[in-house]
Parts: sequence; C-alpha cells; structure tokens
Amino acid sequence: MVFLVRTDLNMGKGKIASQVAHAAIQLYKASLKNKNPYLDIWLTWGQPKIVLKIDKECETTLDNVYKDALKNNLTTCKIHDSGKTQIESGSLTVVAIGPNRAEDIDKITSQFKLL
Amino acid sequence: MVFLVRTDLNMGKGKIASQVAHAAIQLYKASLKNKNPYLDIWLTWGQPKIVLKIDKECETTLDNVYKDALKNNLTTCKIHDSGKTQIESGSLTVVAIGPNRAEDIDKITSQFKLL
Repeated sequence: MVFLVRTDLNMGKGKIASQVAHAAIQLYKASLKNKNPYLDIWLTWGQPKIVLKIDKECETTLDNVYKDALKNNLTTCKIHDSGKTQIESGSLTVVAIGPNRAEDIDKITSQFKLL
Repeated sequence: MVFLVRTDLNMGKGKIASQVAHAAIQLYKASLKNKNPYLDIWLTWGQPKIVLKIDKECETTLDNVYKDALKNNLTTCKIHDSGKTQIESGSLTVVAIGPNRAEDIDKITSQFKLL
C-alpha cells in the first residue's frame, strides 16, 4: 500500500497517522469486498506500507493520482477529513493505492518523495 | 480506536503513520475474527481514531497498557517494527486498543497526551 499525504494542510503527526490509518482500513475493506488477488500476498509479506508526500497543487495532484489509479484498475481510495480537529471539514487529506503489484503502483507514484 | 505511539524512537511522520496503519488493520482483522460487537457501531460513527504519545519508560509503559487492555477484555494489539528502515528490528512501536466503549478505553489511556 502506498499513501500520499498532503503537506500543505500542516497536519500534526497524530492527525497524519489517523488519516493514513483510515485509508489503510478502507483499502483493506475494499480488497476483501472485491476479492483483490494481491491481498493475501501482501498480508504474507509483512503488509508493506509506504508514506509519500504531496507538496504542490495538492488537491489537483491527488485527484489526478486517484483517477490514474482507477484507470489502471488499482485498488484506491480518497480520504476526506471529518473536520472535527485541526483542518476544515471535507478537506481531502490522503489518497492511497494497493495492495497491487509494486511496478503498477510505482508507475503512478514514483515521482513523489517519502514523507 | 486509540493508538499509543513511542516518541523515544524518534520515528519520522511517515514511519509513525505506517506503524499506526499496521495497528489499525490488525485491530480491524481481530474485530472481524472475534465478532467484536463494537465494530459496526464504530464503522457507522466515522471510525474515530485517536493517536496518543508515550514518552517515558516506553516499553514498560506500553507493555502495561497492553496487559491492562487484555485483562479488561478489550481488543488490543502490539506492533513490532520489521526494522527495514529507521529503527532496530523488532522494536515495539505502537500499542492500540479498540473499537470498544470509550469509557472502557479511557480507563486505561486517559493519562496519555495527544501526539
């Protein structure tokens, strides 16, 4: 699983962690529902999770990543914050992809750096 | 769900997020397996996730929290890092609890501060 996190919202460490955890559970649920063939392999191999950052034109960039992932039939989700703490309600905070083949995710996310 | 994160390991934001996400999926899986009666309520109410920090006698404190949660029949897990990046292999990084009733989790975690 790869998580892309906006840095322009200046979320604290705890906030980022909770948003990424929301995304992880959403992808896991979607993988169970859609019988994602990569889920079992991913679980067996230690459930790798990579957290990247988006620091420019964040909403547009994240939207494009999400659309690319959909177009390539990858498991993906968008997280919008409930806005109870720190940031405005409905803000897009994270887009996540996977589990899928690393090379398929890399095509879409390789230009982003580790958070 | 409440996540207790060690701060003495000086993990970066991305590392913390991935460890919390590991814990979230582990609790979710355990909740499905054990038919945790609080899971559906928690999903319906926006899956609240609270991230707290442990900054003193971290391993002992986390172990005690974990044992307390078990003793009180709460859903809980410990996350040990695989040690591929940043920190030593096998390090305990996070203890997480829930979903359970807020007052039952609070009994164990209320003395800790937000990360």
